[in-house]
Amino acid sequence: MKGVTNIALSVDGFIADKDGSMEWLNNQPQIPGEDFGFKEFLKGVDCMIMGHKTFDTVAGFGEKLWAYGDKPIYVLTRGAVSNVIVPDWVPRTVTVTTVKSLQKFWLDLESSHPKFKTVYVDGGRTIQSLLRGGFIDRMTLTRVPILLGEGIPLFTASLGHNVNLKLLDTKPFPNGFIITTYQVINEI
Amino acid sequence: MKGVTNIALSVDGFIADKDGSMEWLNNQPQIPGEDFGFKEFLKGVDCMIMGHKTFDTVAGFGEKLWAYGDKPIYVLTRGAVSNVIVPDWVPRTVTVTTVKSLQKFWLDLESSHPKFKTVYVDGGRTIQSLLRGGFIDRMTLTRVPILLGEGIPLFTASLGHNVNLKLLDTKPFPNGFIITTYQVINEI
Repeated sequence: MKGVTNIALSVDGFIADKDGSMEWLNNQPQIPGEDFGFKEFLKGVDCMIMGHKTFDTVAGFGEKLWAYGDKPIYVLTRGAVSNVIVPDWVPRTVTVTTVKSLQKFWLDLESSHPKFKTVYVDGGRTIQSLLRGGFIDRMTLTRVPILLGEGIPLFTASLGHNVNLKLLDTKPFPNGFIITTYQVINEI
Repeated sequence: MKGVTNIALSVDGFIADKDGSMEWLNNQPQIPGEDFGFKEFLKGVDCMIMGHKTFDTVAGFGEKLWAYGDKPIYVLTRGAVSNVIVPDWVPRTVTVTTVKSLQKFWLDLESSHPKFKTVYVDGGRTIQSLLRGGFIDRMTLTRVPILLGEGIPLFTASLGHNVNLKLLDTKPFPNGFIITTYQVINEI
């Protein structure tokens, strides 16, 4: 089972502003009919895991902007399942799970769902934790042409060691977005 | 007078490791004969300013790796000029200057050297400070395919406000480097 990411960040590395908002991203110029390869990316993943804060954010965008169809999604929380508010319109393929150890959750998911080969990992802390554990295989980063100056960084100093990356693909878009995919070289 | 930058950083935004070393960058695969557009970039600048820590680093690489020819360079320090060690081989076009206010230095340089139109700004803190002041016009960033996990970041949370960027150019290289140039949109 391999983890893949697909996340937008500012040139200075933030995925949300200091209030946790993604308004800066939603305010960027759109390109009509352009989904920046997201549907194609989603086709290639078998399920998705995200932290409950990320779920709160994407569910907060409302039903019309729900981007994940009926892909199986595990929403992870360290607290009680009942603390995560799941709107009525959210597909039944979304499951909220209490997780103490992300690594144990990962290994359990792998053994209980042998058909899950590729897992879309979303949310800053979830990505960081799985990156540190060597579970992330491929990272797709969308660099948005803005400096936020402050906010929630994708990469924190918690990695604690060098990780080599291999550039697989990079593509600029007319609105200044640059989408780059790296293979993560996890030393064995 | 407009400031331009040209700096390499890891995918997670660090310009040096936690010890201030750039060994991680020097250890990257080279491409024979490829200077990543640096000579061309240098042709387009009239002088250069850098902090004394950056000068210590680049002077520490030795005479053979000195990349700046006899371009006028101002090495800025908050302390005494005599505290900055300048090796004998360093061109006489390098001047060490005590600077209390970077903004005042910038304005003085502008009025005393009307021929300086484009200034190459190097070093994390110097770039940050001039970016904050609205003196940086163009940023060339070389994204190196590595996550350092910790180190000296190019962008700190000190900017304190959003700055929009306009993508001017982006180019991947066979060793995985991606060089991207942004215009800084300074609101007036």
